[in-house]
Amino acid sequence: MTNSKRKAQASQASLHRIFTIPEAPDSTLGVIEQEISQNLAGFLGSHIVSTEKPLSEIEKDFNNPIIPEEPTFVSDHMHHLLDKVISQSVHTSSPSFIGHMTSALPYFILPLSKLMIGLNQNLVKIETSKAFTPLERQVVGMMHRLVYQGNAAICDENDDFYKHMMHSANHSLGAFCSGGTVANITALWVARNSLLGANGSFKGIAREGLFNAYKYYGIDGLAVLVSERGHYSLKKSADVLGIGQENVIAIPTDEHNKIDCVKLKEKCQQLANQNIKVLSIIGIAGTTETGNVDPLDKMADIAEEFNCHFHVDAAWGGATLLSNKYRPLLQGIERADSVTIDAHKQMYVPMGAGLVVFKNPASASSIEHHAEYILRKGSKDLGSHTLEGSRSGMAMLVYACLHIISRQGYEMLINQSIEKAGYFSTLITKHEDFELVTKPELCLLTYRYVPKVVQILLKQANTKQQIVINDLLDNLTKFIQKRQRENGKSFVSRTRIEVGKYNGAKVLVFRVVLANPLTSNDILSDVLAEQCELALESQTYLPQLLSLLEH
Amino acid sequence: MTNSKRKAQASQASLHRIFTIPEAPDSTLGVIEQEISQNLAGFLGSHIVSTEKPLSEIEKDFNNPIIPEEPTFVSDHMHHLLDKVISQSVHTSSPSFIGHMTSALPYFILPLSKLMIGLNQNLVKIETSKAFTPLERQVVGMMHRLVYQGNAAICDENDDFYKHMMHSANHSLGAFCSGGTVANITALWVARNSLLGANGSFKGIAREGLFNAYKYYGIDGLAVLVSERGHYSLKKSADVLGIGQENVIAIPTDEHNKIDCVKLKEKCQQLANQNIKVLSIIGIAGTTETGNVDPLDKMADIAEEFNCHFHVDAAWGGATLLSNKYRPLLQGIERADSVTIDAHKQMYVPMGAGLVVFKNPASASSIEHHAEYILRKGSKDLGSHTLEGSRSGMAMLVYACLHIISRQGYEMLINQSIEKAGYFSTLITKHEDFELVTKPELCLLTYRYVPKVVQILLKQANTKQQIVINDLLDNLTKFIQKRQRENGKSFVSRTRIEVGKYNGAKVLVFRVVLANPLTSNDILSDVLAEQCELALESQTYLPQLLSLLEH
Repeated sequence: MTNSKRKAQASQASLHRIFTIPEAPDSTLGVIEQEISQNLAGFLGSHIVSTEKPLSEIEKDFNNPIIPEEPTFVSDHMHHLLDKVISQSVHTSSPSFIGHMTSALPYFILPLSKLMIGLNQNLVKIETSKAFTPLERQVVGMMHRLVYQGNAAICDENDDFYKHMMHSANHSLGAFCSGGTVANITALWVARNSLLGANGSFKGIAREGLFNAYKYYGIDGLAVLVSERGHYSLKKSADVLGIGQENVIAIPTDEHNKIDCVKLKEKCQQLANQNIKVLSIIGIAGTTETGNVDPLDKMADIAEEFNCHFHVDAAWGGATLLSNKYRPLLQGIERADSVTIDAHKQMYVPMGAGLVVFKNPASASSIEHHAEYILRKGSKDLGSHTLEGSRSGMAMLVYACLHIISRQGYEMLINQSIEKAGYFSTLITKHEDFELVTKPELCLLTYRYVPKVVQILLKQANTKQQIVINDLLDNLTKFIQKRQRENGKSFVSRTRIEVGKYNGAKVLVFRVVLANPLTSNDILSDVLAEQCELALESQTYLPQLLSLLEH
Repeated sequence: MTNSKRKAQASQASLHRIFTIPEAPDSTLGVIEQEISQNLAGFLGSHIVSTEKPLSEIEKDFNNPIIPEEPTFVSDHMHHLLDKVISQSVHTSSPSFIGHMTSALPYFILPLSKLMIGLNQNLVKIETSKAFTPLERQVVGMMHRLVYQGNAAICDENDDFYKHMMHSANHSLGAFCSGGTVANITALWVARNSLLGANGSFKGIAREGLFNAYKYYGIDGLAVLVSERGHYSLKKSADVLGIGQENVIAIPTDEHNKIDCVKLKEKCQQLANQNIKVLSIIGIAGTTETGNVDPLDKMADIAEEFNCHFHVDAAWGGATLLSNKYRPLLQGIERADSVTIDAHKQMYVPMGAGLVVFKNPASASSIEHHAEYILRKGSKDLGSHTLEGSRSGMAMLVYACLHIISRQGYEMLINQSIEKAGYFSTLITKHEDFELVTKPELCLLTYRYVPKVVQILLKQANTKQQIVINDLLDNLTKFIQKRQRENGKSFVSRTRIEVGKYNGAKVLVFRVVLANPLTSNDILSDVLAEQCELALESQTYLPQLLSLLEH
């Protein structure tokens, strides 16, 4: 045997090994896995470097565009990952990182995810997913019923609706997808295709396209109406779907960040006069920035009056429906034509679990696609009603959480979060150097650091002076937020929102999301204490602010 | 303390536990995890029931639309999952299941996935992903370079292009996404928005929508040209993007399932005369049904001549670029404006890893989205250039595979698959009772069972007689494929394709994908042997076929 042939055979054998021989428990990866299994928080806490390294520095470790020619040993690569990737990742599950919508995961999710990955099902068709298909349909059914349980036309006491619809080949209660953005696109896609469907000689927008559809139906434009707090994915949806971002019309909000229904109705009327058809009115159940819920019931009335699709983006707040106590906050959601909910947010499932449900299970037929080798007509393949094609078995993780945590468990988690946000807002209000900017309705709130003397000054200031003061405060907020993040002990995010009492001027605020069950009251006190300290470190903005007092 | 208060506290405590106390190694889930870690194939083999249960039976276990009110113990739920879900799932990694594009996974992927899930990063923004952002950019960069390495305008010897572009805030080499469908939609979205961008008083299709865009540019339609073997996701893309499914024009293929370039060019000319702009010509590198590759270089010439976007759907075949031996099959891909590749297909990464790369890193700016609280302009947040919003850290799994398997390792795997398909096609050709329908170019082939005597008959038959015989053969093929799947020992898929020698009539065929490194030659012989046996079990179709011989 020649040398090169021997070498090739050895490589073949080692390649075969990676598919057949598991990592030994005492291998680097085996040890890491045990650490994660035994103490994930400890592992993350000890491996993620807390003080921040500049991104430009980190990028230097990821500069080579050439795929390595020679293989690396698994253990060597694991050291590399620990050193370069894990160490510089973000500790999203830390109880003191209260600026994200990503939170801690229940422990059983870790081994279960490994099982899900090992099974490597493809939910696009039954042939590659079998029981996972009815399982996903049941998960979608459960979420559908959670949304529509107050709707007598759907939910009777025998659940006959679900007996007929949940596993029907010709119906779809919704679509499981990677996240809220795809869910929102799917909802508007269904709304668009249903509105501009086949009619007479017109074969429908799906087949003929949007240009012909507008011409056939004699409309000059479609509009999507949502409050100015709407998520950016709605503009993205309008772009993708050919409607145009500018046709997502932002309706002003009231002082509680809720859509102004008088203005919404006026706009509907005005658009009708302009021959622009309202494709959808969109209610928000949990705005991304402030966590407020639109008056969904009133919006449903308006949608009914103008005969248009009513979508609710409950990506964040949808899980609140699991709480009997706070469910009434979302009153009216049971009248929505479609609803987006992210299970990877307040349902404690890992990233990649969004869904949209449809009130009318026949409506998804407007986006139906078939092919010869799969998704044959009449099949129950899930892929015929989804935007995505191949998809993993993530639904199993939602299924497990719904069973193991249960409705009551989720109620406790949701209630706890909302009450924790209430507690934190009291803490902020009581503290003389902080200003609560938006009160929590769900578990989000915004605030900023404003020294007491500056608060007094702001109150006395005229609009012009307020602008000057708020500009300086913006700089200070940014300084504190950045410095706190860099220190790595805790993290709040920041955003810019209009504030009524400053005549609608946009100010920079800290944004806090209190969904991590492990965030304690002490941590919240510490976050404020750290922010006070950091404020004093500012060599420019705080002195500038205080110097204003002298004039 | 009241009873109910005590109960509530106990529930709180048990809820706290699921976030803080890991599964014990001797718990049900702990034991399952060890089994998976030590012997995934064994676990799957012993837990997945091989003989098929009808879907309608399985559905009975997933009929309840009510979210459980009370919690279930993790171990009880795990028994339930084993019993009802895992047992009835599909053994996608079995070496004798050669009908899917889903295959075996390298072992290190399992613990690594658990780490990825535990880290729970969100790649939409740096704030929730940090090092994962440059890591993903590097993975996209590596795949970009793999595609464009033969393009002198991009790849010089210093890789200056990548030094400037890979981590540039204002550029994007591509987008990582959940799969090929989203990748194809993204590619056509970029093409559409670039073609109909802002110009003079027109603010661009992204802002104004498709109707205004067509009017401004004075076009009556857009067309997407792809061979009749194009994946169904392209029609879906055209639907979503408002172009219309009918404007995806299927160009006939030659006898090797490759697009007929003469007809492609004729169609381009004809559309130009009709004032319909060709949005994109799409080449396929690995058709879903037969695994053939279009003449990409010639197609690039035509795209250049008609000045339109050239996209290559290499969801399946893109990984072939890792093989120096077979890379020339994809000659011309380096001229494509965008290319789709699925890492969860021939790169042995779990479900959920697709990507699209763009030749021009500025082109993604046509789909740019910004928001106040994230994706601020100038930031390096990946979410500003993707269709999806929140996304997991799947890129780390691709990164690990690229390093651990390496280019050379992938070359071996790819070459092995192609050569195995060659071997199987020889086996089929030599067997007197089988007909090879499409020869493998990559590792896919199609064939059917046709008893020798029927083969002779078919050759002598006129067109009308051929139709009768092929109809009976279709029934037989379906019978064998279904029965084989139900028996659970092995699995091939089936599809319907036009066959030149039967005057382009569509016939039903077995479809085989030979990407599992563990599929042995013996398994391939067994698959044929089982099919011969099953054919003889047919009480209707085979006798009917043989009775034809008597006339």
